[in-house]
Amino acid sequence: MNHEKRMAEFKTGLEHPFLVTEREDLFYLLGFQGSTGFLLVFPNKTPVFFCDGRYVTQAKEEIELKVEVQEFKDELAKDIKEAVFSNGYQKLLVEDSLRVRFYERLRNQDLEAAPILSPSRQMRVIKEKEEIEKIKKAVRISEEALRKVKPLFREGVKEKDVALELDYQMRLLGGEEVAFPTIVAGGRRSALPHARPSSYSFKDNDWVIVDWGVRVDGYCADLTRVITIGKVDSSFYPLFHIVKEAQQLAETLIKEGIKAKEVDGAVRLFFKEKKVERYFTHSLGHGVGIEIHEDPHLGPKSEVTLKKGMIVTVEPGIYFPDWGGIRLENLVMVQEKGNKILDSLPLMLGEEE
Amino acid sequence: MNHEKRMAEFKTGLEHPFLVTEREDLFYLLGFQGSTGFLLVFPNKTPVFFCDGRYVTQAKEEIELKVEVQEFKDELAKDIKEAVFSNGYQKLLVEDSLRVRFYERLRNQDLEAAPILSPSRQMRVIKEKEEIEKIKKAVRISEEALRKVKPLFREGVKEKDVALELDYQMRLLGGEEVAFPTIVAGGRRSALPHARPSSYSFKDNDWVIVDWGVRVDGYCADLTRVITIGKVDSSFYPLFHIVKEAQQLAETLIKEGIKAKEVDGAVRLFFKEKKVERYFTHSLGHGVGIEIHEDPHLGPKSEVTLKKGMIVTVEPGIYFPDWGGIRLENLVMVQEKGNKILDSLPLMLGEEE
Repeated sequence: MNHEKRMAEFKTGLEHPFLVTEREDLFYLLGFQGSTGFLLVFPNKTPVFFCDGRYVTQAKEEIELKVEVQEFKDELAKDIKEAVFSNGYQKLLVEDSLRVRFYERLRNQDLEAAPILSPSRQMRVIKEKEEIEKIKKAVRISEEALRKVKPLFREGVKEKDVALELDYQMRLLGGEEVAFPTIVAGGRRSALPHARPSSYSFKDNDWVIVDWGVRVDGYCADLTRVITIGKVDSSFYPLFHIVKEAQQLAETLIKEGIKAKEVDGAVRLFFKEKKVERYFTHSLGHGVGIEIHEDPHLGPKSEVTLKKGMIVTVEPGIYFPDWGGIRLENLVMVQEKGNKILDSLPLMLGEEE
Repeated sequence: MNHEKRMAEFKTGLEHPFLVTEREDLFYLLGFQGSTGFLLVFPNKTPVFFCDGRYVTQAKEEIELKVEVQEFKDELAKDIKEAVFSNGYQKLLVEDSLRVRFYERLRNQDLEAAPILSPSRQMRVIKEKEEIEKIKKAVRISEEALRKVKPLFREGVKEKDVALELDYQMRLLGGEEVAFPTIVAGGRRSALPHARPSSYSFKDNDWVIVDWGVRVDGYCADLTRVITIGKVDSSFYPLFHIVKEAQQLAETLIKEGIKAKEVDGAVRLFFKEKKVERYFTHSLGHGVGIEIHEDPHLGPKSEVTLKKGMIVTVEPGIYFPDWGGIRLENLVMVQEKGNKILDSLPLMLGEEE
């Protein structure tokens, strides 16, 4: 694994000790899979990993890097201060995602604590070869699972029953867990971008939005498809094609060097021409990796320039509360020239137009 | 529902606007089930709920309280400041669990922001009648699901396959989702308190620790049982009985008025007499409700006095890295006189001693 290499990169330019607490960063830097731990990285010394008693054995088994594992009882902030001071430092860098309560506890220890964007969060934006393979595997399993449950998309079946079977298949096929709560939204419920599967039964003429993905070896997939039940209303198709065109437009633009907000802006402009821009109520996409939502953000205010090795969703959607919604989502890897779409299922499943 | 009543209690004694951001508190106060939102509660005015475009329709459907729903784009901190100032306030109270990044963003708006323990976190410690019923239902479904998959606990079956079927059954029986990642740990893996289900196949003479629970109507169950495969090693039974006695000891002590640390301390003292105290590597228990881990904490440093209506786990465990671990967990409701154990499955399932 790349843990030694990652830690070396993490330390580059580091002038003060840095405290890592986010579980995704602990997994990325160490391979630790527990939910709670505190990694103190020094510029020039073996890192110290503080964990509570539940995780001592697990940490020793899972961590693939030379670290000193130290159990803490209740005086964690004090333990951290002592480790910082005894190594000749006064100042501690912390993640800007730290909770105020713990941040204040550190500062009450006479420790100068400065919140910054974590180096590992920034490193995680560009995926390594191994990480790309894991995401591809998560995509394959997610797609295969949807194929397996495809026959359940028929009149009378409930959203939540399909979601349950889809989640089951994703794990049966080798996934660890669902990467996020599966969305299965039929009829007008498709107008809720983050609908929870309900007892709503599909009706003939419905379309269903499925937004799903599995986690494999710690990495997520995130896809959205539209599935039609019988013959859907003819008003559906023109709007479906607008969303599909918007997605294709974004995908032709994505490559190393383009700004994320330009891609998002092009889709917004296209929707404006089609007079539906006010129904596009979210951003165009987001990075996917160990977390289901991570950097870079593809939205109007994003300051990111896309780089080779980023993996992002491209998910335009339009939502009409009294009619329904349509969203399509691919997982796209930025390349030097153009990009590569990692998923391959048809965007619409069901009866043809 | 009790949302109006809860909001009234939340506002009692409130002198400044308070910003609620934790999803569990948004669910408790509003009924909102989305993952992100910002509720600004004023001492004497209709609350404002800020959410992004994905949640506007959902918020209007789900929220069971009079609030003003306001979509934000990217200037949330500014929107909040303006709402605070325009209502004649200068100071904003925030949760001490807020992330430093957002806290700093609020402070950069010339807003005096003070982190405190959220009133709703404190209110949630005492369960209302309706909440107790939901937790009981979650317990019933969790227990029924374990009964259904009991035949899978036999030689040659893998931990992760049992976990998958158990999770499936919990949802099939009416649960929304698993309340936390199910633990199924056989053989020496039972020594890892937070083991993830692996490809380890049960062997004859193994015992398996199962720590599981489902979420129903927003409320969690959390239970642990030991399941034996065939005839287990004779060294198992004396230690099993020690853990069982420890649990019973704690349960006889729990009632309104006792300090949480006294209950934890009694178990520690009992384990000391049995010379196993250093293998008990975690706290005795924790509150369970909308969150799987919430207040009160039952540990050596807890300052809580137990009150009627608290629901806590009682989960002593001892872990020997080279041999295995034993943990038993009940869900216990504190009453004026004594307590009520909410679960009823035998503590050990499998062949008898």
